[in-house]
Amino acid sequence: MTTTTRINGHATDQVASSDRGLMYGDGLFETITCVAARPRWLALHLQRLRRGCERLQLPFADFEALGAEIQTMANGPGRCIVKLILTRGPARQRGYRPDGNETPTRILTRHEWPAAVAASDFRVGISGVRLGMNPLLAGLKHLNRLEQVMAQTAMRTAPLEETLMLASAGQVIGGSMSNVFFANDSGLFTPALDDCGVAGVMRQLVCEAAAAAGSAVQVRAVDPGELPRVHEAFVTNVRWGVQSITALEGRALSRRSHAQELRRLIDASAS
Amino acid sequence: MTTTTRINGHATDQVASSDRGLMYGDGLFETITCVAARPRWLALHLQRLRRGCERLQLPFADFEALGAEIQTMANGPGRCIVKLILTRGPARQRGYRPDGNETPTRILTRHEWPAAVAASDFRVGISGVRLGMNPLLAGLKHLNRLEQVMAQTAMRTAPLEETLMLASAGQVIGGSMSNVFFANDSGLFTPALDDCGVAGVMRQLVCEAAAAAGSAVQVRAVDPGELPRVHEAFVTNVRWGVQSITALEGRALSRRSHAQELRRLIDASAS
Repeated sequence: MTTTTRINGHATDQVASSDRGLMYGDGLFETITCVAARPRWLALHLQRLRRGCERLQLPFADFEALGAEIQTMANGPGRCIVKLILTRGPARQRGYRPDGNETPTRILTRHEWPAAVAASDFRVGISGVRLGMNPLLAGLKHLNRLEQVMAQTAMRTAPLEETLMLASAGQVIGGSMSNVFFANDSGLFTPALDDCGVAGVMRQLVCEAAAAAGSAVQVRAVDPGELPRVHEAFVTNVRWGVQSITALEGRALSRRSHAQELRRLIDASAS
Repeated sequence: MTTTTRINGHATDQVASSDRGLMYGDGLFETITCVAARPRWLALHLQRLRRGCERLQLPFADFEALGAEIQTMANGPGRCIVKLILTRGPARQRGYRPDGNETPTRILTRHEWPAAVAASDFRVGISGVRLGMNPLLAGLKHLNRLEQVMAQTAMRTAPLEETLMLASAGQVIGGSMSNVFFANDSGLFTPALDDCGVAGVMRQLVCEAAAAAGSAVQVRAVDPGELPRVHEAFVTNVRWGVQSITALEGRALSRRSHAQELRRLIDASAS
């Protein structure tokens, strides 16, 4: 991995072991795709980050300077990924309780754009690892990611590109690193994320594009029993964009029309 | 906070920002109480850590050397706390998936023993923050602790010593940093931890002591509706030991007999 790291504005890749991000996963992150020195959808990433800070009562406010730092990190030719980790900062006292006067740590890392998966053969299964439900944390891209780690660990032996995760109560939530959309005869729908899951930037763009095109995405609870009847499905994140699922739990899905149209709409609005 | 830190055997308190412990909370921890240079219940701590490594497929095996390091860290007069964080180590590739060849990071920190809470006035409430349920992670002392951070954050404005957390399905699980036991006319009982919660070392000692004394603790689902009828309650962790709850959600609890007897049995077996 070729990476460049800056922490709190300094060229270092070392962080205090007393950082609450390490001790408790007490922080948030964003993965920002950059093309030709431009961080894409930066405002949406910062918006989600701000929502996360509010929800976690993480006392960070300087989103404008942070945006400029991300912009600087994105500089350079071609494409890259800029990852931001924002933690509550070094612990000021023992134990879980923050005293409210922590100084957040911001870690920015520039990564090469990873090799693409074969978009023409994108198989998706259902993970045996479920997601705990917690409305307080739902939607946020926080640092408590052991469930995703375990789901991805299980995929080491499975010929899959992504795996769908169910909530502990059984409903479909999304991919281990993506959101998911389905289509049946009634149109497009995507899981509600009131109990768990990450509200992705690309998910938001898809919902907005579909609504603007006059065919709003239904956001609702999705039962896994519905999956055998969907005729199109795709996963989304800012790196993959809108990625059609070619096989869902072994069942081939050949339709691509929703995905193609949404990709066209999102590309058009980005340029 | 006066602390000494050693990471992977070196006197440093800096860790790579690419450590999976920081990125995903991908690791475990133990908080070990030490008295007169002796880490108490070290075997039980290492046993739980080993269980955690197995469950997370975290490739750490050298528990003997780790035990010796903890012992060295405990050296010195009086009492101290040695905290161990064991992460999966620096990421070797992007994304949640470990490649299985990571080199775990072990962080040992020696802390002063914190000032005691007033054991004679120990008020406990019920937190509005619930615990997501995930059998795969239940019982482990892993680094995904945002729920506990949020529960403790809410306590900043409440005159409480500890707060009980319910699972998302509603059953009582334990304190934000302790396990909990209750007594009614049928005897002692404590929440089952099959879905969430940390299986504490002191919890295990209490269960073993009670069983040895002929009055086994019932481990079962506990409905919050039962709490108004319990006549004794206590929380446990290795620092507090067996700590009687003097008021549970504002209701005074005056009985201490189970707690006193268990404290006596555990002290006797430790010496």
